[in-house]
Amino acid sequence: MSVFAALADWGTSSFRLWLVDAEGQILAARRSADGMAAAREADGGFAGVLERHLAALNAPVGVSVVACGMVGAKQGWVEAPYVATPADPASLASGAIRVPGGERAVHVLPGVCQRGEGVFDVMRGEETQILGLEAGEGRELVCLPGTHSKWVAVEDGRLDRFATFLTGDLFSAIAAGTILKHSVVPGDAQFDEAAFASAVCAAFERPAELSASLFAIRAAGLLSPDDAPHPASVLSGLLIGLELAGAASRFGPFAGPPIRLVAAGGLAARYRAAFRALAISAIEADGEAAVRRGLFAAARKILT
Amino acid sequence: MSVFAALADWGTSSFRLWLVDAEGQILAARRSADGMAAAREADGGFAGVLERHLAALNAPVGVSVVACGMVGAKQGWVEAPYVATPADPASLASGAIRVPGGERAVHVLPGVCQRGEGVFDVMRGEETQILGLEAGEGRELVCLPGTHSKWVAVEDGRLDRFATFLTGDLFSAIAAGTILKHSVVPGDAQFDEAAFASAVCAAFERPAELSASLFAIRAAGLLSPDDAPHPASVLSGLLIGLELAGAASRFGPFAGPPIRLVAAGGLAARYRAAFRALAISAIEADGEAAVRRGLFAAARKILT
Repeated sequence: MSVFAALADWGTSSFRLWLVDAEGQILAARRSADGMAAAREADGGFAGVLERHLAALNAPVGVSVVACGMVGAKQGWVEAPYVATPADPASLASGAIRVPGGERAVHVLPGVCQRGEGVFDVMRGEETQILGLEAGEGRELVCLPGTHSKWVAVEDGRLDRFATFLTGDLFSAIAAGTILKHSVVPGDAQFDEAAFASAVCAAFERPAELSASLFAIRAAGLLSPDDAPHPASVLSGLLIGLELAGAASRFGPFAGPPIRLVAAGGLAARYRAAFRALAISAIEADGEAAVRRGLFAAARKILT
Repeated sequence: MSVFAALADWGTSSFRLWLVDAEGQILAARRSADGMAAAREADGGFAGVLERHLAALNAPVGVSVVACGMVGAKQGWVEAPYVATPADPASLASGAIRVPGGERAVHVLPGVCQRGEGVFDVMRGEETQILGLEAGEGRELVCLPGTHSKWVAVEDGRLDRFATFLTGDLFSAIAAGTILKHSVVPGDAQFDEAAFASAVCAAFERPAELSASLFAIRAAGLLSPDDAPHPASVLSGLLIGLELAGAASRFGPFAGPPIRLVAAGGLAARYRAAFRALAISAIEADGEAAVRRGLFAAARKILT
């Protein structure tokens, strides 16, 4: 099989590389922790990291690379300025920036931004994944949970509107930096689904009361140390419930087709539990396959 | 004038002491940073701190002391267990705990707790201040802003219900511990009232969108570095707006008499600006006089 292109999903802390043929079939793959942060410090910088991984896959000399993610941020390899919503594979491909100098053609895809009505937002990496979901006609909501959860309205295959929620980042900051540090045990892996589900519903129904509900975690521990609900599960439920309330406020009630949940492992399980608690239907999508398909679609437009 | 009692407002980080006569008139006063945290480590502990301050005021030998605040917490001098809502001066007085041993009579007032319908909450110190506001007949809402803001419904002079909001604590944790640390400059004293007021209204009207509005502070800085609204003012406005939305959700729309705002200095100015932005009427109360009156009322019940 002949190699058509190398595709790289290059985030802050992770690096994934695929060699694909002209049909997008995977010929070889690699993953490592050589994300943007590590690559900035690596021998030979971003180029050094990329060449070593290509060599390890025995990539043909001269194969072109298409990359997405934080590699295109201001603090990355080359800045690929954001393109505006609505975005589609063509706008991503035409916003790609070729890394200057160097013998190898490396094209870095842009992130996507949203402005207007005082609503500012940015994403970098998720846009490629979203467009790789290959949504059909009509409107669909996609949820990509994480430190900064993204909710995206996809319309007829275009990335139409989106919102970023600080959910995971808030969890860490509140657990470590507020009075709740006396309640939430660092590294506690326990999960109480009933307490979580009840907190999801409370925050979804009464988002205004969030900061009172947070203090109540501490008060419950003081007043009922033996039967207070598990603090970390409640905190997680409140913040995910707030996120779902925010998504409903931005994108309307969840009345359309099932939400596409792009997540894996424990995070996917937690969001499934939240959707279940609110009787919202959701289906899961494979995020890794999606980003690879999104990169391939862009590579076809850029390289052919 | 003869000294009737010594009254102490003894918080986590501050200590205030008054000698008063039988009418509650101030005969002498002192303030220091010998709060609970310092007193635990001080020579002679809490008793040592108290005796030194009484001596500095030339307090008569044998004068009794009535104290409120964190001095009565589990980690304080003597634990004065919470009394339940509804609370009034009589229930505070009868819940007071006398410090065991020692020649001097020192009575520590209890905090107040609230349980039921899954709503847990506690206060310690604010209850004495609230009851010292000497509210008349009818229902009144009191707002005591701070690290953990308290909103209290007072009904016919009784502390009826309350809610604690993590506002100030959230501000610090979010500014220092999330991606907003790249936007909010530590120690920045600038205040943009227009940006603040607009954020107050946004969070009050759409509290569900809080965590998206937080991320938008960062995105605005990335997309419009030259004219993005002042990050710390927006963050403060969003969290105070959320607190006001939460108070309205817990206590009903602000349709009653003006809210009693117990605050001073910059914090009072900020809450006044928030009330103004939402056209909510509020009047200010002197918190120091209130806590002294609340202590005096309790002292009359305990000592006579």
